[in-house]
Amino acid sequence: MTPSSPGSLTPDVLGDALAVVRKEPPLVQCLTNIVVANYTANVLLAVGVSPAMVDNPAEAEEFATVAGGVLVNLGTPYLDTVEAMRAAVRGAERSGTPWVLDAVAAGALEWRTRIAHQLIGQHAPVVIRGNASEVMALAGRGSGGRGVESADPVEASLEAAMDLAQRVGAVVAVSGAVDHVTDGARVVRLANGHPWLAQVTGAGCALGALMAAFAAVMDDALVAASAATATFTVAADVAAEQAKGPGTFAVALLDSLDSLSPDQLSGMVRLR
Amino acid sequence: MTPSSPGSLTPDVLGDALAVVRKEPPLVQCLTNIVVANYTANVLLAVGVSPAMVDNPAEAEEFATVAGGVLVNLGTPYLDTVEAMRAAVRGAERSGTPWVLDAVAAGALEWRTRIAHQLIGQHAPVVIRGNASEVMALAGRGSGGRGVESADPVEASLEAAMDLAQRVGAVVAVSGAVDHVTDGARVVRLANGHPWLAQVTGAGCALGALMAAFAAVMDDALVAASAATATFTVAADVAAEQAKGPGTFAVALLDSLDSLSPDQLSGMVRLR
Amino acid sequence: MTPSSPGSLTPDVLGDALAVVRKEPPLVQCLTNIVVANYTANVLLAVGVSPAMVDNPAEAEEFATVAGGVLVNLGTPYLDTVEAMRAAVRGAERSGTPWVLDAVAAGALEWRTRIAHQLIGQHAPVVIRGNASEVMALAGRGSGGRGVESADPVEASLEAAMDLAQRVGAVVAVSGAVDHVTDGARVVRLANGHPWLAQVTGAGCALGALMAAFAAVMDDALVAASAATATFTVAADVAAEQAKGPGTFAVALLDSLDSLSPDQLSGMVRLR
Repeated sequence: MTPSSPGSLTPDVLGDALAVVRKEPPLVQCLTNIVVANYTANVLLAVGVSPAMVDNPAEAEEFATVAGGVLVNLGTPYLDTVEAMRAAVRGAERSGTPWVLDAVAAGALEWRTRIAHQLIGQHAPVVIRGNASEVMALAGRGSGGRGVESADPVEASLEAAMDLAQRVGAVVAVSGAVDHVTDGARVVRLANGHPWLAQVTGAGCALGALMAAFAAVMDDALVAASAATATFTVAADVAAEQAKGPGTFAVALLDSLDSLSPDQLSGMVRLR
Repeated sequence: MTPSSPGSLTPDVLGDALAVVRKEPPLVQCLTNIVVANYTANVLLAVGVSPAMVDNPAEAEEFATVAGGVLVNLGTPYLDTVEAMRAAVRGAERSGTPWVLDAVAAGALEWRTRIAHQLIGQHAPVVIRGNASEVMALAGRGSGGRGVESADPVEASLEAAMDLAQRVGAVVAVSGAVDHVTDGARVVRLANGHPWLAQVTGAGCALGALMAAFAAVMDDALVAASAATATFTVAADVAAEQAKGPGTFAVALLDSLDSLSPDQLSGMVRLR
Repeated sequence: MTPSSPGSLTPDVLGDALAVVRKEPPLVQCLTNIVVANYTANVLLAVGVSPAMVDNPAEAEEFATVAGGVLVNLGTPYLDTVEAMRAAVRGAERSGTPWVLDAVAAGALEWRTRIAHQLIGQHAPVVIRGNASEVMALAGRGSGGRGVESADPVEASLEAAMDLAQRVGAVVAVSGAVDHVTDGARVVRLANGHPWLAQVTGAGCALGALMAAFAAVMDDALVAASAATATFTVAADVAAEQAKGPGTFAVALLDSLDSLSPDQLSGMVRLR
């Protein structure tokens, strides 16, 4: 399979996507983990998006029918929050709300890998996000990473990502030094970002939430996932210049997400 | 109903309240949500108050009998933490410990709205905190906001807030560009704060915890809730001058809460 | 009982320990509380260690058999996470994975104190971490602190710490203005750190996670716990110079943990 070029996916398309999110900020329901819930909410708020962490079984389904987008992140699943995830996906299906799956540590841990497959089978997400190991595990390949870290290079996972995208009918986003986003036919490569991102817990998880925000306001999930990635990683480039280490970087990233303009995004994004 | 003036509630009364909290720092039990627990604890610690996030059913009641104040925040309720909230309110009732209700997203979500009404009916809180939508929902008016954001202007909710205050026998604090605090007869308006507060997840929730801290050391809940609001929003004014965006602002706010003096508070608070 | 000198535990031994952690960064499974999970993960990442917050009953045991070290922190225990803690300790026992117990608020709260004793009885941790009150409670002395704060001076708890260490066969680390680490025979005193640490929620909890990281890569748990303490508190000394208050301090601490070199550690540590 020869990955085709992204075609019309230009820097301006990504900048325009950010402009749409800023103009029509969606409400994003996040069912995420206890480690990153705070940072995820602050990332969404910095971009102007409204987070709502509605992750209990009694409210998750109903809320998914009114939310603009839904994030399901498997970082710290418990019996009741998993039940809430299933309910949220049910609500998303019923109302056509786009949802994003972030299958943290899929492949490395059996229970959540099974849950991830069940959720995908229940109702297709618009975007599946993960590192190379997680994506390969969901595609039925590879031996899994160790915990939340990836053991496989991103390029090696690309074929698996494209297979998974085609089979599920979802866009698959693989994070790494170069981020890859594919719908099974097209492949977008984005080369922004900073090594400090790997030292900020929840950076990837927050990006997943941002993908749900972009997917809430645009139809093309490839554009949504790519524009979210560009927004987050270009802002990281800006933040890195202000920071002295991973601590100040994580804080500066919220500032730069707040101030990032569509033009700045178009001008700084490195599409490959 | 004509809201009466705050009477004796002067800037000096608010500054004195902060001095009392600094001198006799209470222990505040927080049953709060997974998104804001960290920031809430850091806000309390910055003011000199001791947080204790005891939110399980086995320990919550007993601990509420020894805590100085209790915060119940409905941000991410689960079956077990809701059971813990009921237990904590039982303990608070038994020992006369003042407790504060922060009914996050009341009106927008049925389950937690019902829980909020049950908790209020079980034993009256000293303070109910919320945005305009949440307060109107608890008062039985309005159609609810969307998630944690308010859809109603604060002024429009004032009558509902006063009704609710009279009916429950609690002080009701409505946050907004101008914060309103009422005991059903008196109304205090405070006009400090910064738009960045709306971009820091847990800012409002942390303020609720601060109200529980102030209520722990003073009898007049109107003064307690107003002084907590003044402390938080004046510190926000100071922090905004140090910050470049919502990320650095949230961090600077902890610094300014730590250094804020009673005199600074009295001098900077904008009572309307 | 006369505490013997630490003997060979020199500044260089502590610096070397940091060098080992940097060179062979372990994977640390954290079963910790909702308040500090984010900061704990960021502290580990700053040092180069991989955190994995696997804290559900379905995955905790299996994961403990592949993790390099395990942290069990009793800050906000729930029925399911306590079940996960028991499972993780079972996995740690099965595979010989070192685990660290941070018995937050032991003595002050009955349920978790009982859980702490059960976990210790199930399989001995390599390190027990706490403040003076918590350690005295676990040793069967003292009347418990109030919540997470210590009511007893560190020195007064030393005899209890040594007794506990001998009885359990674990190293006991007591945090305070001067930190004490003992294996029941040797006592290491470390006098770095800053008062702001007491105003950063999760500072102590993150130190517990760091102890699990060091214990993962070295056999002598006294060295591991002491080197983790030195790393954290020396980095705090560096951070305090950059900070204006507890907010900027907590952020700067992540930067200084990232940049701290073994030589800097050896040069700045204050062994007593």
